[in-house]
Amino acid sequence: MGDTVCNGTQGKKLLLDSQLFDAKFEELVTELTEGDLQDLGVADALSRLKEILRYNVPGGKKNRGLSVIASLRELLPASQLTQDAVQKALLVGWCIEMLQAFFLMADDIMDASVTRRGQPCWYKRDGIGLDAINDSFLVESSIYRLLLRQCRDQPYYVHLLELFNETTFQTELGQTLDLITAPPGQIDLNRFTMERYKAIVKYKTAFYSFYLPVASAMYMAGIDSEEEHNNAKHILLEMGEFFQIQDDFLDCYGDPAVTGKIGTDIQDNKCSWLVVKALEVMTPQQRSVLEACYGRKDEASVAKVKELYNSLQMPMLYHTYEEESYQRLQKLIAQHAQNLPHAIFLNFAKKIYKRNK
Amino acid sequence: MGDTVCNGTQGKKLLLDSQLFDAKFEELVTELTEGDLQDLGVADALSRLKEILRYNVPGGKKNRGLSVIASLRELLPASQLTQDAVQKALLVGWCIEMLQAFFLMADDIMDASVTRRGQPCWYKRDGIGLDAINDSFLVESSIYRLLLRQCRDQPYYVHLLELFNETTFQTELGQTLDLITAPPGQIDLNRFTMERYKAIVKYKTAFYSFYLPVASAMYMAGIDSEEEHNNAKHILLEMGEFFQIQDDFLDCYGDPAVTGKIGTDIQDNKCSWLVVKALEVMTPQQRSVLEACYGRKDEASVAKVKELYNSLQMPMLYHTYEEESYQRLQKLIAQHAQNLPHAIFLNFAKKIYKRNK
Repeated sequence: MGDTVCNGTQGKKLLLDSQLFDAKFEELVTELTEGDLQDLGVADALSRLKEILRYNVPGGKKNRGLSVIASLRELLPASQLTQDAVQKALLVGWCIEMLQAFFLMADDIMDASVTRRGQPCWYKRDGIGLDAINDSFLVESSIYRLLLRQCRDQPYYVHLLELFNETTFQTELGQTLDLITAPPGQIDLNRFTMERYKAIVKYKTAFYSFYLPVASAMYMAGIDSEEEHNNAKHILLEMGEFFQIQDDFLDCYGDPAVTGKIGTDIQDNKCSWLVVKALEVMTPQQRSVLEACYGRKDEASVAKVKELYNSLQMPMLYHTYEEESYQRLQKLIAQHAQNLPHAIFLNFAKKIYKRNK
Repeated sequence: MGDTVCNGTQGKKLLLDSQLFDAKFEELVTELTEGDLQDLGVADALSRLKEILRYNVPGGKKNRGLSVIASLRELLPASQLTQDAVQKALLVGWCIEMLQAFFLMADDIMDASVTRRGQPCWYKRDGIGLDAINDSFLVESSIYRLLLRQCRDQPYYVHLLELFNETTFQTELGQTLDLITAPPGQIDLNRFTMERYKAIVKYKTAFYSFYLPVASAMYMAGIDSEEEHNNAKHILLEMGEFFQIQDDFLDCYGDPAVTGKIGTDIQDNKCSWLVVKALEVMTPQQRSVLEACYGRKDEASVAKVKELYNSLQMPMLYHTYEEESYQRLQKLIAQHAQNLPHAIFLNFAKKIYKRNK
């Protein structure tokens, strides 16, 4: 593993960046909780913020956060990538991780989840409960405090404020759509259309996971034309859609020993690509089996849905989709990347296509 | 009532402003939910946003929102107060009402409240529940969408973004302190110190209710010096503290026929000025009575706490505080208002001192 990662300059940079990124976190926690807020009256609240940040922000794969510095390395010549520029890219990367932590803390409450990233969800901890709602707000606010304190003098400052605000709203709209489409306890397969599926994925996941990190790096590199941003958005939203469809596929067909998680989309009545695609191709008879079994917790029902997926050859349909999406993406990059270094997109693509976890 | 309100130019302006303000709301809802977001995929989410905004934003007294235009009228000569400037002040006023709605929607969930402004809390409505968390996020995001769409070209745009971000964080810190100090179900009077009480009031209420509206108007009038903002903040936070102490007093001693609500601070184990002040002056014997009865739901316990308050002459202590605070405020205005028209502060003060509801 160490060998593969360290192979070649690109690999060395990535290893270094991920170490730099990890080291940056505690610096930011200190800045957010021991900064110049002299008011001793709120010391207890800031201690709690420190605990909230440490528990909820750093435990993920950090792909989104690391994409900022990775993209900036492609966008700027090494001579322009000063120490300060690198530190700011790490900071903005953590802002994206904080935005995600804010969403996940709240989503876990809304979905009544139990664990997250291998530990109890924050709201499930003793003495926390619904106070976790306000705790999630503090994480969101931390983004804007960091940007104010570290990027206020930068020409891209207002662009980042607007980008984070817009992305936050888009993600919230996506969560709204998701909640409307698959309300817990209500099973209605009529709502599971491919159009709705794609809207949920685009808004709830793709904007903040794919466009946000690259767009942040573009603004930091001085690229702020609407045209260039639209081109990048086009490509990155296509990748985001593919990424989520793959995630949905692996939930059912992935190897838990590899993915590290046991999928429960069928039991949880999720508007997954598998059920949406299956609904498009199944017979009315098959549909009544699905109606009777989808969103049920018992093993027999889950097994029947999986049987149905197999008989509809969902793995084949998925692999066809994967190939088509990959081709479409290469074309989009060729057509739309224009002045932007193709490597930004190709590196991303390499990481996500044909992954098995 | 109509007579008093219409008496004098100031009165006429206020009546007109409150009508203008009410009329502005639907215009903003349309802008937020039928704007240029062409993506039909999110139409259902935007319909929900419309419903959320109409249910949660306009039902309050709107004092905070109306203070923006009232303050701007004091800060700018009539000749500079164009139609456009008035419309923007109304919009920023609604942004403050939205910020409050965001907090209240979430606070109601955290406090397990049942009604708000004479109707069921949003999360208590059929089919809403904890999805109200995401709904509250949408209301917060609406603030920044409106500022972007309507104020982006204004010299005060970034000041308002930063002011709203900072005020949001301060209010969240205040809510954190409040939750730490009086966690539901845990009664510990040792936490109820005057120092903690003042910190909670300042952060949870005074910044967003008193400083935010006036500071917004100041930025809109081109006043952005740190010194002038600190002076205004000083005065307005003092007012905010008084306002909350009065609110706490009226919760126990107000006439429900006048205030329109029946106080439950004693039952709810609230860190109220009354209990904090009483703790400062009571004997150890009286304290053990309080320990046994505070935060209990039964009528006998509540009656015993009220008896204790009466024997400690809390109404007299309150009126002494009220008089002192009023004098302190007049002095602060004389010392710190400097270039700012005193009327901004005096009008505020007139509204809140000696109110009985």
